[in-house]
Amino acid sequence: MIDTASALALNAHCARCIDNDELEAWTQFFTEQCLYRVTTADNHAQGMEASLIYADSRAMLNDRVLSLRTANVYEKQRYRHLVGLPSLLEDTPRGRRSETPFVVVRIMRGGETSLFATGRYLDELVIDGGDTLRLASRVVVCDSHNIDTLLAIPL
Amino acid sequence: MIDTASALALNAHCARCIDNDELEAWTQFFTEQCLYRVTTADNHAQGMEASLIYADSRAMLNDRVLSLRTANVYEKQRYRHLVGLPSLLEDTPRGRRSETPFVVVRIMRGGETSLFATGRYLDELVIDGGDTLRLASRVVVCDSHNIDTLLAIPL
Amino acid sequence: MIDTASALALNAHCARCIDNDELEAWTQFFTEQCLYRVTTADNHAQGMEASLIYADSRAMLNDRVLSLRTANVYEKQRYRHLVGLPSLLEDTPRGRRSETPFVVVRIMRGGETSLFATGRYLDELVIDGGDTLRLASRVVVCDSHNIDTLLAIPL
Repeated sequence: MIDTASALALNAHCARCIDNDELEAWTQFFTEQCLYRVTTADNHAQGMEASLIYADSRAMLNDRVLSLRTANVYEKQRYRHLVGLPSLLEDTPRGRRSETPFVVVRIMRGGETSLFATGRYLDELVIDGGDTLRLASRVVVCDSHNIDTLLAIPL
Repeated sequence: MIDTASALALNAHCARCIDNDELEAWTQFFTEQCLYRVTTADNHAQGMEASLIYADSRAMLNDRVLSLRTANVYEKQRYRHLVGLPSLLEDTPRGRRSETPFVVVRIMRGGETSLFATGRYLDELVIDGGDTLRLASRVVVCDSHNIDTLLAIPL
Repeated sequence: MIDTASALALNAHCARCIDNDELEAWTQFFTEQCLYRVTTADNHAQGMEASLIYADSRAMLNDRVLSLRTANVYEKQRYRHLVGLPSLLEDTPRGRRSETPFVVVRIMRGGETSLFATGRYLDELVIDGGDTLRLASRVVVCDSHNIDTLLAIPL
């Protein structure tokens, strides 16, 4: 069943995997055919398709994670996702829409802490493979257009 | 039933409406006769009645939203509410008390992001009109006294 | 039952007690024999046992609270915990592991607001005394090593 408790648990585990650098586990929360996009509020409001990150399958997400693993010479900073309360919205043919706010804090190796990004997840949740709740679609809408375009980690 | 899941869903939808600029929908989460006040922690601790915002009915909240719509020449900034986990407290004759922390981040049009306000919601939740969970009372207690007194959006 | 809703309620009430300066009530969320440690992500990753705060019983937590009450000449600042969504993990012989992110904002008496700490709670939740969910263990892993070593309040 797609309810507040299950949407909340999915959101919690997604954020945990990113912050704990378990990105291979993070991709498992998406369906094999999926959509993952990161965009800005301005672009989203204007219906523009431009994305900072774009993937339309779990395989593409896995590729991205693999390239992060190869490129990542030295982890200079840490991120902390604070995901807010999910709002469950209307049903879709496959599942249900959900919208969830987030704040990401960046912690530099020197210890300095700052707000890195805020925004909301526009999700389509589906029951996949019998009984597992997964993301068929997640559009990450960042409030600010000043997002680091070298954005390394998923949001 | 007024439980953690339903209180959480109400809080999620309230915050979503404010951040998505659906203020007319936001007022629908209050009972027709209601209390909505914004105050500071110092004033609240001293039992002072002074409020930055005060409304004692949904009609008054609607009036306030209407005047925001008229006055709002240009939206210069965006806000992101991150509402924390609700603590359900004692029953009241009509419903149940609940307390929920929040953080509001302000995103300027230039992209700069900063902490705008923190505090807690002191709510009385009631079952209204048969089966809808609504706010009979919400006192917004801001931690800082440095709240913008031209406060345009609801908290 | 140890599920998302009950873990969420426990986390909500813990944070509320700290922010409302009800520290005597906060210690009641721990089992009599318990572990409460505050450490940094670097120390935790290296398996180091060094702790900024350490207590291995509720009595020791109560002692710490009492000493805070005695030493606290003047409350210069206020804290606001924003606790994120709990991720329930594997079962243990006694209960269940849970991991929960947090952000703490500090509000100075002058009104200035800043990020104070971020991190995650690594908890072991147990059913205690028949039907009460309590913390058998909470390890607070702070993301930054720049934590105020005179840390007065619990995290």
